[in-house]
Amino acid sequence: MNCRVAIIGLGLIGGSLGLTLTQSPGIEVVGCDSDPAVEEKALAIGAVHQVGGYFEAAAEADIVFLCTPIKTIERLAREVARVCRSGCIITDVGSTKQAIMKVFRRLSENGIWGIGGHPMAGSEQQGISGADRYLFENAVYVLTPEGNTPQEVLDRLSSILRLTGAHIIVMDAGVHDRLVASVSHLPHLVAAALVSLLQGQEEAQALAAGGFRDTTRVASGDPRLWAEILLSNRLPLVDQVDKLTKRLQELKAILEEERQADLVDFLQSSRTLRESLPAKRKGLVPSVQDLICLVPDRPGIIGVLGSYLGEKGINIADIEVLRVREGDGGTIRIGLSREDDGPAAVESLLAHGIKAWLK
Amino acid sequence: MNCRVAIIGLGLIGGSLGLTLTQSPGIEVVGCDSDPAVEEKALAIGAVHQVGGYFEAAAEADIVFLCTPIKTIERLAREVARVCRSGCIITDVGSTKQAIMKVFRRLSENGIWGIGGHPMAGSEQQGISGADRYLFENAVYVLTPEGNTPQEVLDRLSSILRLTGAHIIVMDAGVHDRLVASVSHLPHLVAAALVSLLQGQEEAQALAAGGFRDTTRVASGDPRLWAEILLSNRLPLVDQVDKLTKRLQELKAILEEERQADLVDFLQSSRTLRESLPAKRKGLVPSVQDLICLVPDRPGIIGVLGSYLGEKGINIADIEVLRVREGDGGTIRIGLSREDDGPAAVESLLAHGIKAWLK
Repeated sequence: MNCRVAIIGLGLIGGSLGLTLTQSPGIEVVGCDSDPAVEEKALAIGAVHQVGGYFEAAAEADIVFLCTPIKTIERLAREVARVCRSGCIITDVGSTKQAIMKVFRRLSENGIWGIGGHPMAGSEQQGISGADRYLFENAVYVLTPEGNTPQEVLDRLSSILRLTGAHIIVMDAGVHDRLVASVSHLPHLVAAALVSLLQGQEEAQALAAGGFRDTTRVASGDPRLWAEILLSNRLPLVDQVDKLTKRLQELKAILEEERQADLVDFLQSSRTLRESLPAKRKGLVPSVQDLICLVPDRPGIIGVLGSYLGEKGINIADIEVLRVREGDGGTIRIGLSREDDGPAAVESLLAHGIKAWLK
Repeated sequence: MNCRVAIIGLGLIGGSLGLTLTQSPGIEVVGCDSDPAVEEKALAIGAVHQVGGYFEAAAEADIVFLCTPIKTIERLAREVARVCRSGCIITDVGSTKQAIMKVFRRLSENGIWGIGGHPMAGSEQQGISGADRYLFENAVYVLTPEGNTPQEVLDRLSSILRLTGAHIIVMDAGVHDRLVASVSHLPHLVAAALVSLLQGQEEAQALAAGGFRDTTRVASGDPRLWAEILLSNRLPLVDQVDKLTKRLQELKAILEEERQADLVDFLQSSRTLRESLPAKRKGLVPSVQDLICLVPDRPGIIGVLGSYLGEKGINIADIEVLRVREGDGGTIRIGLSREDDGPAAVESLLAHGIKAWLK
């Protein structure tokens, strides 16, 4: 594959895309960002081969990725399209697709193919510092081409994107926007609403435990960015707000009438549905067996632990420090990629005086 | 301290409590569970010193912890109180407190002190397999004593509970129930409602990414257990459902009228409030500096990594496998407990040919 890619906007998404593409032979990645410090960091971590002005980058590119905030994407698309070569693909990574498709639709007159894109992956870490070459691994990446986009063009973009490990799903921009209203925008609005109910209630805030923090994690997203996203999709979102309100009224009646069986059924079917949702695995080496061990607190203990297992040829697919207390040690969860390794791993750690058991 | 503790119900909470208390000199822990396999596991991992029938355990105990599902706690409290010695403390770990306090209130006639308890800690891992001696570390643990409980008795229970690393907060049972309605029960109901809106929408389910999974994680809780909890607190919960409904209507108006500044303000204040919430740290060694490194995929690599850092006297406070791909290696986040260690850690890893940078 021989392809020149321009990435405009080197934030979390642009940077992560770059980290994968620079690893792929035959792909040349030029990046640009309005912040020179970001460009420098992108070069340093290998997210781009070179940096340059965005008109120059776009003029030379076979594929242009617009990875800026949603508000600037439409304007940028129009500007960039003026310098792009015929046959070039312009795509974006914005969270809603109908508005940008209005701009993309017109580009085909000049032989430029605008294809909407939305990688369904994110991270609490914003910006280039959060960039991760596996960010898209196993994530869904939606493409919303116009009907007149040749299959060959769509395939060209898809094959580049598949290098990131993403699953490509092609759908209509309008359908996309309706669906993300329910799986992304409504949950965001609700999370912020749940937090807002604690305003001024200091005692309640002190009680907010892990469950509350999980439920409202998305409410820590950037307010300006999210206000733009939510407003850009306001009609489908309002429709979802109405649906949720109706559902809450049904639940209120169930509570007031103490219909326990109905409540169990409702919670049960939500749980079943949730557990059937595609979980994004961390990679292609899922851990199949968890091991818990208690370790003393001293520098290098994680290394020691790893080398005890390494000596026996046992691979750690995943490792997580559950808790640690200074001077007293910690609890560590180790995910093994082979179930057979479980007993040998426990035996090896016990032999070294480390308390360990299989979960 | 010389104290005999009985733990009735060796699930996640009872088991975790046991794991801490058995480590404390002078405390003798007797546990019981309706499932003999659970009792055996509790003995094996050191969550109890011995197991026994619950009447026998309670009759000998200075403090009885009732750690069974909320539905059985009231009956159990009445039964157990018949055999307890005068001066004994009975406490529970249920999620709502007004109903159990009606039972506890009557015990003082016989010189037994019933004190409601609610540890605000949990885990996705249920049962004794999820038990962790640091589960309560830095978590809030609410106690709801009756007004006539002597301070000395309350102090006795608090000092035992502080061994778990929990922060003890004393409040009225009615206040507690109103507060948990907003920080726990409403978020649970809403998470289940959000999931239920995806019923029958296969395409939407395919798009449900990390954010949706986080927001709805609590909806994977046990349906019977949660139906009991929600119904046991239905009046405060219905009140919260009304408050949320009202807030959603305000937000709907903001969206329909495209009041961008108001939406940004709302999201901003929710974010600020959420970030001010007490985060449960993993322990007393918070990591202050994150390091990212790319490692090759081979057995023992985590050990090698740990030993490179250990050699330099650098302690790993936290470690997380961000992503891993077979044959290609992975991305690992390492949390360091001293900021000063950052540059030396990067240098050491780079010197060994491992790509690393500070976040």
